[in-house]
Amino acid sequence: MAAYFPECADIVRAALAEDIGTGDLTSLLTVPVEKRAEGRIVAKQSGVIAGLPVAEMVFLQFDPGLDVTLSVEEGAYVEAGEKLMIVSGSARSILTAERVALNFLQRLSGIATKTSRFAALVEGTKARVVDTRKTTPGLRILEKYAVRVGGGFNHRFGLYDSILIKDNHIQAAGGITPAVQAAYAQAPHTMTVTVECETLAQVTEAIEAGVDIVLLDNMSLEMLRKAVELVEGQAAAEASGGVNEETVRAIAQTGVDIISVGALTHSAPALDISLDLTSL
Amino acid sequence: MAAYFPECADIVRAALAEDIGTGDLTSLLTVPVEKRAEGRIVAKQSGVIAGLPVAEMVFLQFDPGLDVTLSVEEGAYVEAGEKLMIVSGSARSILTAERVALNFLQRLSGIATKTSRFAALVEGTKARVVDTRKTTPGLRILEKYAVRVGGGFNHRFGLYDSILIKDNHIQAAGGITPAVQAAYAQAPHTMTVTVECETLAQVTEAIEAGVDIVLLDNMSLEMLRKAVELVEGQAAAEASGGVNEETVRAIAQTGVDIISVGALTHSAPALDISLDLTSL
Amino acid sequence: MAAYFPECADIVRAALAEDIGTGDLTSLLTVPVEKRAEGRIVAKQSGVIAGLPVAEMVFLQFDPGLDVTLSVEEGAYVEAGEKLMIVSGSARSILTAERVALNFLQRLSGIATKTSRFAALVEGTKARVVDTRKTTPGLRILEKYAVRVGGGFNHRFGLYDSILIKDNHIQAAGGITPAVQAAYAQAPHTMTVTVECETLAQVTEAIEAGVDIVLLDNMSLEMLRKAVELVEGQAAAEASGGVNEETVRAIAQTGVDIISVGALTHSAPALDISLDLTSL
Amino acid sequence: MAAYFPECADIVRAALAEDIGTGDLTSLLTVPVEKRAEGRIVAKQSGVIAGLPVAEMVFLQFDPGLDVTLSVEEGAYVEAGEKLMIVSGSARSILTAERVALNFLQRLSGIATKTSRFAALVEGTKARVVDTRKTTPGLRILEKYAVRVGGGFNHRFGLYDSILIKDNHIQAAGGITPAVQAAYAQAPHTMTVTVECETLAQVTEAIEAGVDIVLLDNMSLEMLRKAVELVEGQAAAEASGGVNEETVRAIAQTGVDIISVGALTHSAPALDISLDLTSL
Amino acid sequence: MAAYFPECADIVRAALAEDIGTGDLTSLLTVPVEKRAEGRIVAKQSGVIAGLPVAEMVFLQFDPGLDVTLSVEEGAYVEAGEKLMIVSGSARSILTAERVALNFLQRLSGIATKTSRFAALVEGTKARVVDTRKTTPGLRILEKYAVRVGGGFNHRFGLYDSILIKDNHIQAAGGITPAVQAAYAQAPHTMTVTVECETLAQVTEAIEAGVDIVLLDNMSLEMLRKAVELVEGQAAAEASGGVNEETVRAIAQTGVDIISVGALTHSAPALDISLDLTSL
Amino acid sequence: MAAYFPECADIVRAALAEDIGTGDLTSLLTVPVEKRAEGRIVAKQSGVIAGLPVAEMVFLQFDPGLDVTLSVEEGAYVEAGEKLMIVSGSARSILTAERVALNFLQRLSGIATKTSRFAALVEGTKARVVDTRKTTPGLRILEKYAVRVGGGFNHRFGLYDSILIKDNHIQAAGGITPAVQAAYAQAPHTMTVTVECETLAQVTEAIEAGVDIVLLDNMSLEMLRKAVELVEGQAAAEASGGVNEETVRAIAQTGVDIISVGALTHSAPALDISLDLTSL
Repeated sequence: MAAYFPECADIVRAALAEDIGTGDLTSLLTVPVEKRAEGRIVAKQSGVIAGLPVAEMVFLQFDPGLDVTLSVEEGAYVEAGEKLMIVSGSARSILTAERVALNFLQRLSGIATKTSRFAALVEGTKARVVDTRKTTPGLRILEKYAVRVGGGFNHRFGLYDSILIKDNHIQAAGGITPAVQAAYAQAPHTMTVTVECETLAQVTEAIEAGVDIVLLDNMSLEMLRKAVELVEGQAAAEASGGVNEETVRAIAQTGVDIISVGALTHSAPALDISLDLTSL
Repeated sequence: MAAYFPECADIVRAALAEDIGTGDLTSLLTVPVEKRAEGRIVAKQSGVIAGLPVAEMVFLQFDPGLDVTLSVEEGAYVEAGEKLMIVSGSARSILTAERVALNFLQRLSGIATKTSRFAALVEGTKARVVDTRKTTPGLRILEKYAVRVGGGFNHRFGLYDSILIKDNHIQAAGGITPAVQAAYAQAPHTMTVTVECETLAQVTEAIEAGVDIVLLDNMSLEMLRKAVELVEGQAAAEASGGVNEETVRAIAQTGVDIISVGALTHSAPALDISLDLTSL
Repeated sequence: MAAYFPECADIVRAALAEDIGTGDLTSLLTVPVEKRAEGRIVAKQSGVIAGLPVAEMVFLQFDPGLDVTLSVEEGAYVEAGEKLMIVSGSARSILTAERVALNFLQRLSGIATKTSRFAALVEGTKARVVDTRKTTPGLRILEKYAVRVGGGFNHRFGLYDSILIKDNHIQAAGGITPAVQAAYAQAPHTMTVTVECETLAQVTEAIEAGVDIVLLDNMSLEMLRKAVELVEGQAAAEASGGVNEETVRAIAQTGVDIISVGALTHSAPALDISLDLTSL
Repeated sequence: MAAYFPECADIVRAALAEDIGTGDLTSLLTVPVEKRAEGRIVAKQSGVIAGLPVAEMVFLQFDPGLDVTLSVEEGAYVEAGEKLMIVSGSARSILTAERVALNFLQRLSGIATKTSRFAALVEGTKARVVDTRKTTPGLRILEKYAVRVGGGFNHRFGLYDSILIKDNHIQAAGGITPAVQAAYAQAPHTMTVTVECETLAQVTEAIEAGVDIVLLDNMSLEMLRKAVELVEGQAAAEASGGVNEETVRAIAQTGVDIISVGALTHSAPALDISLDLTSL
Repeated sequence: MAAYFPECADIVRAALAEDIGTGDLTSLLTVPVEKRAEGRIVAKQSGVIAGLPVAEMVFLQFDPGLDVTLSVEEGAYVEAGEKLMIVSGSARSILTAERVALNFLQRLSGIATKTSRFAALVEGTKARVVDTRKTTPGLRILEKYAVRVGGGFNHRFGLYDSILIKDNHIQAAGGITPAVQAAYAQAPHTMTVTVECETLAQVTEAIEAGVDIVLLDNMSLEMLRKAVELVEGQAAAEASGGVNEETVRAIAQTGVDIISVGALTHSAPALDISLDLTSL
Repeated sequence: MAAYFPECADIVRAALAEDIGTGDLTSLLTVPVEKRAEGRIVAKQSGVIAGLPVAEMVFLQFDPGLDVTLSVEEGAYVEAGEKLMIVSGSARSILTAERVALNFLQRLSGIATKTSRFAALVEGTKARVVDTRKTTPGLRILEKYAVRVGGGFNHRFGLYDSILIKDNHIQAAGGITPAVQAAYAQAPHTMTVTVECETLAQVTEAIEAGVDIVLLDNMSLEMLRKAVELVEGQAAAEASGGVNEETVRAIAQTGVDIISVGALTHSAPALDISLDLTSL
């Protein structure tokens, strides 16, 4: 994977325990312990593949004696029928670990595939498509990884690594200016500040308060264009709300720098992927 | 929730830690500690709501001083705009816990909603719609719960609580009959045995071997009908493969007892749900 | 071991930590670090050996540089004085890990030995001896494994993998029939249902309700025979209560299919096993 | 309990999870959620009761709404039929938690009962009966607690809290004297040193080396008496090996200070205890 | 505390377990269970107090029946002899938890005190004193909290929440410009980029590459002044290296925005604090 | 390391997770994955080195492909500029793990260095310098290890492995004699008893009560000498309170056996150690 994931081994371990529990009795009782086999993981739909290293970790964590060979690179676009990975060794082990490996692969490839479509739609514009915090509880680090594999970019990872002042914060702080001042006065100097704006007046106030990023929330294309003009390079401009495959290109063409899309992670259907086993 | 989930508190704790990390600086720096507010959780789409007790646990685990009132019952069908839950107390706490609560609610309601459509489609037949093991790693117990809330039923929870003999097991064991015999000879007497069949001859062999359930894999409607006749009450008949909202009713009308649908959990889009905050 | 035990490594790790704590000062201060030795694990009583792979894991988890050779097979019946396993390498490591390895081996072999006596006593009948949920907290998966090694069979692993309706459930549900109907109506179709019966009338009602297994609780031999006649192959018949080495054969001869025995796990004395060390 | 057990809540939590897993379907499907009941925990055999606070913790951890009243004191000797504890509240909760509570209570009371018999047998002598490290992996802190409840005393808790030099350590260190010197030279000054002796010459050497305790291993009564004379108050004298209910009094009468008995924990049969439920 | 610390309860729990282990025998055997007492936590040295909420959590987590009253506010400067906190209730509980509570309080107050001296020394300049990643493994979140309590500010919390390009990164990337470009091209848009500069030429290059912060490493005062001129508000200027109580004011007067000081956390001596107990 | 530290791997794992979180973006984005480098860990101050095996574990746990060579022995006294360890392999891995490795090394070497000065100051006397329980929460086992590396000795590890009766315990028990009697009557026979004495009368009473160790708390040199005379080999004499580098030798010359010094662990400044990287 493109990053050190200290939690990834733990996520894989928990997923295996969740599925296997007190044992895969079916394989234990019907498959002789010495039987060898080869499993081919194959895409049943076209799409962008993400999660091969996670699937590999599933097989090897369950049985370090298995042999895994990748047939495509992480991030490859494949057609239906294409082979993704070969795993060979104990037939029992492959059968027991199969479902967990596929569950990761299907979900992460689903996210990468959806992201790649958005990324293609903004090509040629200066906008980058980014994810949100609308991820599956417990899998954020992997889902945000899949977004990168699919050609997207990451927004902040959580509440802790950047400051994002929304309408409720503004109201509680008594306005954009005091909210921004409070943030810069006390936050680590390494941290950026974003302000969510619903009107052009708010954009102007945010810029004057010196924010790093203005988040343009649910604005029309017309309004986005005006906001971009107001921002004029003094901050980054992020569009959010109502973004889908139909609207994303027009939004990108307004000149915004960033477009955040919750559906990348919360509503990407799994990519259909299966494993075919042949005896050795 | 309808069941004791010893892991649920841990899942919630991990989800909060994942999002909050070293702290929600935005709220800490802009929202006065004494500020009170009321948050209304509202459906932005119609659907079946699942996960209210999980969302409640998120708020109360983060801040036991919050007050949570449910506005609808778990499993209710709601229209867009309907209020689901009110949480009141510290504005900071509500803002910090909001996203995690919504992430659970959106995902579980998405599953319940999709399940409810399948359940409605088989109404009047004797078939029950059941889930599979194609769940999000780490969330199986919650996702299977959401299927029940949506009017579906659960298949086995993992590899450990029932025996399901697939083609590879059959081949490894030297046929359906020896595979089934091995299973009954050694498995706990409390455990059922299912055999996955692709032909009618296999169905006949499985029935003769005394299995509890025959899984009719990817069969045409015609073939399903014949299989049901062969089974004739000596086992339960489960259809699987190629099931979607277009095909499920016709499959149910073949007389099968169970229809398993992976998409209930692996491809249900999130139900759009948000939180509106007003100061107190 | 005959099954994948995801928790087994954790159980071993916890057991080592429990015994070693902040360090085995005795060995550290008196045994030179370079000293090599060979430890022979020897049975001091005759019995059936279970837990060799667990003991091996103890030694190797503590010090991967140790060499372990099994001298008998898991499940072997041995006489007093017979050698079970040889572990060689660092004298310090062997001395430090010794007690934990023996504690597992003595307990699991005690269970396997007790089970093997029950299994021998029912030989020639159709009854299988099964365990119960009366296991040591935290060790159920290992204790149930030891029962299998000793020639017994497993009952359900917990409350979650089969339905067992006892007198209190019957009373709460308003009778056997409604209890059984509720169970079949909502439980996963893969799950069996057992009803605990104290009278023959209850047996009849349970059979008519379609249960998979009738549990004949604390019945006399005469009553067991009548119950078996009533059941007549429409369900499995399980006897429980008052089973000991004196009574088990007569119970088996009544024709029941299953005899459950709590004492297999809750009252099996440890098998006496020790380790003799010789310097190398 | 007589001590702070930081791990006790974790042991209880793990035991509940082990038994309940994904849910007690039987109770969920047959017992109405609003049903109240009262459970009486009753001894079916006479013995010394230990573990009441653990059993109470099981019920309250599972359902804080339950009401628990102890009918006897921890450590009480009870006759068969005596009531130990009443738990009232949700019938479902009582039924689900029952087995785990009983498993702790039966095992710990078994140990306390066995210990109390040994303690009675040495009454009037100066010897104290102590446990060993031959405990069930993961339950040492509870089992050693049960020994105290039964009137016994604890030996060291693990390898970390006292130094016990056995034959292999002596051999590795080049004799008793150098082994003892090494221990005192480097161990914390708060730590005692015991030497295991098989001959009287070893006893003399250990005393001269200044040990705190001599462990007289597998000696005849005659030899024990001589060893006690040699020790003569310069160290504590501990007898071990071959101790059972037949031999313990004679051993105590040799004048030893301590008698260690592995069987207290490794071979105590469970005390038969059950729960009777009545509806409210 | 000023922030939600999901890990704080776990840190406290681990600290209690580390100290108490299998039990505080001294208190259990000498202090009657019903004895009540009042403990006064008193500063034995003057300084800035941090960690009162952690110490409170120690007492309450160990025994929720204790009563804790703060006598000063978190962050107060106190003289030797001043009372900080009163804890009353079970004498046993206070004695058992005392050391852990004091260990936290002494360490965190030591850090806050050291920080407050640095903060005072830069008063009137625009520089803020910030911490580094040179913290005690496992306590970073608490130590960085103590820095804030002492009037300092936080730098990034770890490798994950900001980009800091040091000499080795520059060399590996082929220069400052390509390193900075790579960072901005792929990092989340919410993340700032700092470049560590050792020469003025590097400062110029970093500014031209558009970095957010230039870290001026081990520069003389003269050089710092020139660097600040070069930066001229286009980035933040951070001085680091060779900062101590003698040099910090002069460094601040060069006009830098941030001064990072490792010694705040890695070399702050504990503040002497003790607990006096009086019986009630 | 000189001892088996079951928790050490966990402490290292937690420290890496704390620093790396969701990834070291700087290294990932600027250092090519194939780049090799060599890092030299060098002392910037003279002192006694402790923690080399911990630092090694940090590097190897993060990336098992790294190569680590120690240049000095654990416990060596080094001058500023001396090389301690070489780590070579992936440049990225070295850069990412560097800070955590140094944080352990600096802290533990700081403790060993401070301890070594105390140990040198008492040379030639019979006193041993020992640590206390005033350690950093979570690191006690490592900090006590560093004390040993620096030539000091350990006191008890926690509340659980020895009995130390302080003034409050004495008062609660009704005097030294009853407190000591209660301790010996019920504690494991392997456990020593210490009494903290503030007057010579208390020393006499403690000796008569048969304690193993008298702790002479905050006594003048004159009083210490008298106490030592009173003790006269019937117990060990431990001085504590007001011990620093100026006073320790005179205290040792009073004839006490043990001098306990909290500052060894609670106020040892970090030893300055850094890592220089060169490309390969």
